[in-house]
Amino acid sequence: MADESTPEPTPASGSPSRRSLIGWGGAGLALGAAVAGGGVAVATRGGDGPRTVNAAETGAAVAFHGAHQAGVATPVQDRLHFAAFDVKTTDRAVLVQLLKDWTRAAERMTAGLEVGEGTDGKIAEAPPDDTGEALGLPPSRLTVTIGFGPSLFERAEFGLTDARPEALVELPKFPGDNLDAARSGGDLCIQACADDPQVAVHAIRNLARIGFGKVSIRWSQLGFGKTSSTTPEAHTPRNMMGFKDGTRNIAGTDTAGLADHVWVSAEDGPAWLAGGSYLVARRIRMHIETWDRASLREQEDIMGRTKVEGAPIGRQKEHDEPHLKSLRPDSHVRLAHPDSNNGARMLRRGYSFTDGTDGLGRLDAGLFFIAYQKDVRDAFIPVQRRLARHDALMEYLQHVGSAVFVVPPGVTGRDDWWGRSLFESTKEA
Amino acid sequence: MADESTPEPTPASGSPSRRSLIGWGGAGLALGAAVAGGGVAVATRGGDGPRTVNAAETGAAVAFHGAHQAGVATPVQDRLHFAAFDVKTTDRAVLVQLLKDWTRAAERMTAGLEVGEGTDGKIAEAPPDDTGEALGLPPSRLTVTIGFGPSLFERAEFGLTDARPEALVELPKFPGDNLDAARSGGDLCIQACADDPQVAVHAIRNLARIGFGKVSIRWSQLGFGKTSSTTPEAHTPRNMMGFKDGTRNIAGTDTAGLADHVWVSAEDGPAWLAGGSYLVARRIRMHIETWDRASLREQEDIMGRTKVEGAPIGRQKEHDEPHLKSLRPDSHVRLAHPDSNNGARMLRRGYSFTDGTDGLGRLDAGLFFIAYQKDVRDAFIPVQRRLARHDALMEYLQHVGSAVFVVPPGVTGRDDWWGRSLFESTKEA
Repeated sequence: MADESTPEPTPASGSPSRRSLIGWGGAGLALGAAVAGGGVAVATRGGDGPRTVNAAETGAAVAFHGAHQAGVATPVQDRLHFAAFDVKTTDRAVLVQLLKDWTRAAERMTAGLEVGEGTDGKIAEAPPDDTGEALGLPPSRLTVTIGFGPSLFERAEFGLTDARPEALVELPKFPGDNLDAARSGGDLCIQACADDPQVAVHAIRNLARIGFGKVSIRWSQLGFGKTSSTTPEAHTPRNMMGFKDGTRNIAGTDTAGLADHVWVSAEDGPAWLAGGSYLVARRIRMHIETWDRASLREQEDIMGRTKVEGAPIGRQKEHDEPHLKSLRPDSHVRLAHPDSNNGARMLRRGYSFTDGTDGLGRLDAGLFFIAYQKDVRDAFIPVQRRLARHDALMEYLQHVGSAVFVVPPGVTGRDDWWGRSLFESTKEA
Repeated sequence: MADESTPEPTPASGSPSRRSLIGWGGAGLALGAAVAGGGVAVATRGGDGPRTVNAAETGAAVAFHGAHQAGVATPVQDRLHFAAFDVKTTDRAVLVQLLKDWTRAAERMTAGLEVGEGTDGKIAEAPPDDTGEALGLPPSRLTVTIGFGPSLFERAEFGLTDARPEALVELPKFPGDNLDAARSGGDLCIQACADDPQVAVHAIRNLARIGFGKVSIRWSQLGFGKTSSTTPEAHTPRNMMGFKDGTRNIAGTDTAGLADHVWVSAEDGPAWLAGGSYLVARRIRMHIETWDRASLREQEDIMGRTKVEGAPIGRQKEHDEPHLKSLRPDSHVRLAHPDSNNGARMLRRGYSFTDGTDGLGRLDAGLFFIAYQKDVRDAFIPVQRRLARHDALMEYLQHVGSAVFVVPPGVTGRDDWWGRSLFESTKEA
C-alpha cells in the first residue's frame, strides 16, 4: 500500500499505561474505594449473618469473605453469567492449585480489581494477567460462587469419593424433561452475578483463562433479567411470561429462613460442608409464542396470580396470602406453595434468557432457574416432581438443561480457598 | 390430591388489574411522564437535528417521531436486541398493515407504554395486547429502528423492485468470511436498543407477536455491552478484546458528520429514502482464548492503541490524533482510519455478545458490529475489503453473520408509518 511506510517501533516498557495494566498500579488504585492499606482489603463484614448491601449502592463491592459464599443470600444483582466446567486434569495437586488461583482471582475481581499481582516483571512480552474489558468499571456488586458436581466426586483420582455428601444425588428424570447433555451437568460450576453484564462475563472469562488446559467450559448461560428478588422491599421482577416471580422467595435478610432451608449446618453434615448449600440449575425454555396467545384469564388462572399486581387470585395485593383451595388445583402457585410440599422452600435466584432463535422462527427464551437449598431431596426434587406431573404451566414450558452442585462454605480469609475443607479432609487416592 | 378442593372461580372482568392490563388505564397512566393529554404524546423534538438525550436521564423516553428514525444518532443505549425477519405473507396489503401496526406499537413502547389500545372490550377472553414483562419498567431510552433487506425488493408480489436503491447492494464475500446463512440476511430487521435488556427484548417479542403468521424471526442477537459510543464526552466502552472501541466514532451531535456520512439526502436519492440510511450488521466471533494468550505488546501493536488509556501508539491520550505512519502497516487503527480509506466514515453502534459455548470448551463471544452509513459502496465495503485482506486483527476474528438493510426515514407523526414513502411511491405488481 503506497501510503504506508515502515512503522517506527514505539517504546513499550516505559509506558505508564502498560505498567498499570500489568502492575495494576494505575487502574487498580483508581478503584480506591475497594482498596485499603495497599492490599486487597475487601470489606469483610464479620460473623455468620447474611451479607447485606444497600440496594442504592449499585456499583459497590460485595464482601467476598465470609462463613457462606456470597451470591446466595446477597441481594440479587441484575445480570448473570453462569458456567459449568469439565475438569480435564487428572492431577489432584493441579486441581487444588487451580482452586487456590481461582479464589485469589475472585477475591480481586469482586473488589473491583483486575486479576494478577503484577510481580512477574514480564511487562512487554507476557500475556496480560487480565483480559481488560472490565478496566475502569466499578465492582458492580459482582459475586463469584463455586459449586462441585456429583461427577467430580466420582473421579477416583481426586480421592473425594468418600467425602461425597449423601444429599448430593443426581436429579431424577422428571415427566416432560427434554434435557440436552450439552447444557447439563458439569464437574464444577461458577455463578457470576453483577449489575453490569460486562463485569459478570469478565469474571467467567478470566477464570476460564486461568483454568486453560486444566478445565474446559462445558456450557454457559447469560441471564439478562433477574426473575427473583431476595429483597422483599424491592419491586418483584417479572419473568418472560410477564408475571412477577419470586414474591414468596426466601429473603436474604431472613436469617431463620436461610438456616432452615438454605444453609447446611454442622449437624446436617458432612463436616466439610458446614455453611454450604446445594444449587439446582435448570434451563427452562418457555413456549412464549403459545403463551402469548392464551387469554389473560387463562394465564392468570394457570399462574394463580393476577398479571399486573401479582396478587393471588381472589386477593388484592401481591403479598396477600393466597387462599389455596380457591385456586385451580393445577395452578402454579397452589402446587408450588410450601403448604402443598411439606413446607419445602428454596431460595430462588433465576434469570431470564433470550438466546437468539430456534431455527423455527421462534425466540429461544425462558427462565434459567437457579435455586439454593439445604437438601435437594426435600426441596427441588419433590416440588419439581409435583409440578412436572400436575402444573398447568408445564404446557408452556420445557426443561432443556439440568445440573446440581454442592456449594462449599465461604472463604474466610486470604489463607483460605474454595473447597479447602473438602480437600483437606480427603487425600489423594 | 387430597388437600385440594374444587376451585371457586373468581370474578375476572371486574378486577382493576385486568382492566389496566387490557385497557392500560392503570399501568399506562402510571407512566405519566411520557403521557400528555391522555394520548400517546411522545415528546417530539421537531426539526432535522439529531435527537439528543441527556446521558443522565437514564429511564427517560427517546422521541420516536422525527425526520430520521431514532436509534441511529441517538446516544447509544446499554443493551441491544436485534432481529431479522423473513416475510411470510405474499399480500402487499397485509405487509402494509403490519408496518402500520408495528409503527403504532413502537410509538407506544418507546413512550414507556404497553402495546394495545384496549378498545376491543374482550377483557377476559382475548389474549393480552401486550406480553407484560415490561410492565412497571420505565421507557429506558428504548429506540426501535426498522430496515428493509435487498430480498424484500426482489419479492415481485410487493411491487418494490423499481424502488430498490442502487446503493442497496448485497455485500461481497470478504476474505476470511465464514458466514452462517441462519445468521445472515433477512427481508426486514428491527434494532431495539434500551438501557434495560428486558425492555429491548420486550419490544422485539411484541413486534414478533403482532407479526405472527405474516413474518417469522430469521435470526436474532442479544448484545450486552455497547462497544461504541456516539457521545464523545462519555467514557468510551471496551470491547471483548479489552480495548476501547469507537474513539473516533461519528458523534450523534455532529450534524455535519451525520449529513456527510450517515443520512441519505434528497439529492442522493431515491426520493422515498430522503432522511434514511443504510445499516450493515456483522456477527464477528472473537477467538478470545487465543487473543488472551497474546502478549500485551502484541495486542497493542496489532490494535495500534494502548490498552488502558486507548491512546494511539506513541501518543499520550485516547483522543490524540494517531501518527499513522508510525503504526504497523497491518495495525487496525491505521487500516481503518479515514485517511487510509478516502475519508470513509461510518456511525458504529455495535454491542458485545456472549452466546454460551461452542461445544469445544470456548465461549462463543465477540462483537455484533452495526454501522450506519450513507452508502455502503463508499464505506463498509471498501473498508472491510481492506481490513479483511491486511488487518493483523483478522487472525483473532471470524465474521460468521452478515446482513445489509436500507433504513427508511423517520415517522413524522401519528398518521405516518414505517416505509410509507416507499410503499406510496410504488404499487402492487
